[in-house]
This record gives sequence, C-alpha cells and structure tokens, in this order.
Amino acid sequence: MEYSELPANAAEMRLSPYKKDFQHSYVFGVFPIIELADNRPSALFRIILSSKLGEEGRRLLTEKAAAEGVPVTVDDRTIERLSPKENCFAIGAFRKFSAPPDADTDHIVLVNPSDRGNLGNIVRSAVAFGFRDIAVVRPAADIFDPHAVRASMGALFRIRPAYFDTFDEYLAAAGRRNLYPFMLCGSPMEAEAPDRTLPCSLIFGNESAGLEDAFAHMGTPLRITHENTVDSLNLTVAAGIGMHWFRQEVH
Amino acid sequence: MEYSELPANAAEMRLSPYKKDFQHSYVFGVFPIIELADNRPSALFRIILSSKLGEEGRRLLTEKAAAEGVPVTVDDRTIERLSPKENCFAIGAFRKFSAPPDADTDHIVLVNPSDRGNLGNIVRSAVAFGFRDIAVVRPAADIFDPHAVRASMGALFRIRPAYFDTFDEYLAAAGRRNLYPFMLCGSPMEAEAPDRTLPCSLIFGNESAGLEDAFAHMGTPLRITHENTVDSLNLTVAAGIGMHWFRQEVH
Repeated sequence: MEYSELPANAAEMRLSPYKKDFQHSYVFGVFPIIELADNRPSALFRIILSSKLGEEGRRLLTEKAAAEGVPVTVDDRTIERLSPKENCFAIGAFRKFSAPPDADTDHIVLVNPSDRGNLGNIVRSAVAFGFRDIAVVRPAADIFDPHAVRASMGALFRIRPAYFDTFDEYLAAAGRRNLYPFMLCGSPMEAEAPDRTLPCSLIFGNESAGLEDAFAHMGTPLRITHENTVDSLNLTVAAGIGMHWFRQEVH
Repeated sequence: MEYSELPANAAEMRLSPYKKDFQHSYVFGVFPIIELADNRPSALFRIILSSKLGEEGRRLLTEKAAAEGVPVTVDDRTIERLSPKENCFAIGAFRKFSAPPDADTDHIVLVNPSDRGNLGNIVRSAVAFGFRDIAVVRPAADIFDPHAVRASMGALFRIRPAYFDTFDEYLAAAGRRNLYPFMLCGSPMEAEAPDRTLPCSLIFGNESAGLEDAFAHMGTPLRITHENTVDSLNLTVAAGIGMHWFRQEVH
C-alpha cells in the first residue's frame, strides 16, 4: 500500500475543507473512524472531537488514537469548518492511499463513474461481496471525496484503490484474467457461470453512457436481464447484482 | 387509480416549490415528462418550458401536451422558482396518484424507508424487474418528493403506489400471499426459490434499522449472503438483488 506524503507539521497544521488535490481527506463519525484505525492505521494522522461527543464515543476514539500514536484534540471550530452537516461529532483526517491491483485476486473496475456517492456505495457492496481491489478509470469521481467516504460506511478503509488514465493502462497492470464487462449488448448474466480458472474483473461503465462499444469485444460481456420499460438500472444497483451473481455458487 | 383533487384554477394557478402536503408535485426534464404523459396522462395538468429548451424538446413536449389537452407555457420565472438545479429546461406538474395494492400481483413493500433518493431508485429497480405495486409503510419518505421522482428516472409513472399507516393495514389490503421479509436473521436467499403458488411480497426495512424482529415470524425471512466485514448492504442495492433473485428462473 502506498500512502500520500504529508507536510512535516501534519499533526498540527490547520485543516481546510476538502479539495480534490489534497494529499489527505476526512471521515466523519465515530464508527467510520474506528474502521479507519482498525483497517488502515497508517493512513490515520489526526482525530478531532466535538465537545458535544458522548462519553462512550470519546473513550473509544481516545483509546484508538493512543494505540495508533495519533493526536486527538477537542476542537469545535475545526469540526464546524470541515463538516458539511451539523450533527458531526468526530472527524478522522487520513492520508490518501493506493495500491497496484493484485494480479491474483478478482477486481471491480469502474470506468468513468461520475457520482461520488455511487462510488462510495459500490465500495460498500464490493467489500460485502469480498472484493478488495477496486480500479477506477479516469475521468472519474474522487473516491476520497468525503461524500464518497461517507457513502462507503467505512468500507473504503478495507479496499486497495487504484486510478488509471485509460483502461489499457489498467489491463497492463492487472495480469492475465477473465473480463466481464456489464453492458446492454451482453449475453444474459443469469445463464452464465463465472469462469474462475483465472482471476476475474467485473467491469462497469458510466452512469449515463455505460461502457463504450469496444468493450463488447473483450472477454464475456454480460447483461442483467430486466424489462425494457426502464433504460437501465442504477449503476450502484447493477454493480451490486453483478457482484452478487459472481459470488454465488448456486449456478 | 385515484388522483388527487386540484383547485378549479389548477391550469393557471401560481405554482410554488414543492411541499409534502401538496396535492401535486413536479417532474423535471423532457424525458421524464414524456414518461408521465405516456403512462399517467390523467395526472399531468401543466407543462412549463424554459426559453432555453432546444427545438426538439419543445416540439416533443408541445405535441404531447396537445395530445393530452394540457396547457404549455414558456415561463422562465416559474422554472427558476421550482427547479432546484440550474440546468432544468422543462417541468411537468402532476396530480398525486395512488392505488390499492392488486391482490393478484407481486408487491414490493417498503417499511419506513427514510431517504427519498433511495425510494426513487427502488421504484426504478422495481419497474425494471416487473413489479407495479409498491406499498410504503409510514413513517416514510415521500415518494412524490421531486428528489424521489428524479431518482426514479420516470419509473414512478409506471407504478401503483400506496401508503399505509401500519404493516397490518397493508396486509389486510393485500390479499392472501407469500411474504418474503429481507432481514439479517433470514435464511440464505441463494438457497431458496420463490414460491409462486400465491402472489408474493418482498419486504424491505429501514436504511439503518432494517425490519423489526416481528417480521422474523412472517412468511419466509431471507438474507442476502455477504461477508460480515460490512454491517449491511445499502437498501437500494439489497432491494435490487432481492428483486433480481425473485425474477430469475434459473434456480
């Protein structure tokens, strides 16, 4: 795992509202901060508490911080400055992280996802279905945007994310594998069983445009069977159904 | 189908930003307005166009309005007042509608859904998987809130929605049927096939709390198998996977 470099004074520097080009991001709420401390301890560099945080949450986070050697401060003004919502009582500041895709594992590949909330929700589903490597092809929403972090419900800290400028760049890094692009011209997923003789990649396109035609000639394009009264399923729903299909052994 | 009553001057009255207690709501965008005109023509009572709307969109909506006998106006100030986003070029105003659940069809039942975006997304999935009757048990988000309408991508106009104050009230109206509550204590869905000897209801609980324990004694409680690294799936994702399972005949 690679972690972003922070300035030497990261433990004391004034924290500003998130911007995409930051080397760090924020996670809001006690439970997601604990997920961060437990699963990506090297990324966590600071915990800020609201004076309104309850006894139990304060105890839990103070213990975690001590265990990881991370500074904790009670600082309502920083909370107010960084949090988009009023009922935020704890913030974890963490370094961004990434990892080249593991050639031996199954991957989720998101090509040009445009919605940060979808990105976070897909991360949540991916972890639920046992995927750890998530590749994102640009242009794409920012997986470290606090909205995406929030939607992932802490699952972001269990994955190995990697961004690529092109799908070919991903392929070159991913190792030999079976490709399953999800697209309307694919064959019915329900009649296929995943071929696990190699590691696999499930590939999902943009919310509006889907995957471009070139993917129809890669691996085994699949379609989720549904009535044509709606154009398509929501990306998060389609990805969830695809992952569930891949993990089930009943076929 | 029952439609809300509007004042006699509905075709000319000043339209205000949506509130939950209104008898009418709004849908934004050319495509969803066409879905409304095609599938719930009796609900549509007015179309407002932006002067920035393109030639093709204007032609399509003017034709639909003429066919349905609905007034169309170009009115940028109303567009500005009603639309939450800047790039809205057309608004359809429609009467709310509801229908008692059909005793002969399969239903989706949402118990206490709290997020209007989720509600709209679930409607979109439901229509994709051939469900038409959607029952919502209060307290619950508002299926006619423009955010829910938007998330449904026009699918709202293909369903028969009904609200109930309690689940028992729904049951009394729904007719004899097989119940499938989705909950963590259920048996693995993947090992079950839907029993179609009666119409069925797939039942999903609140985003955070799920279904209360009493549902464990109703019908056949089901669980979507996933790793316990995440507490639960996103409600929209879980509902999509449940509906997909129900519609597939491969089991």
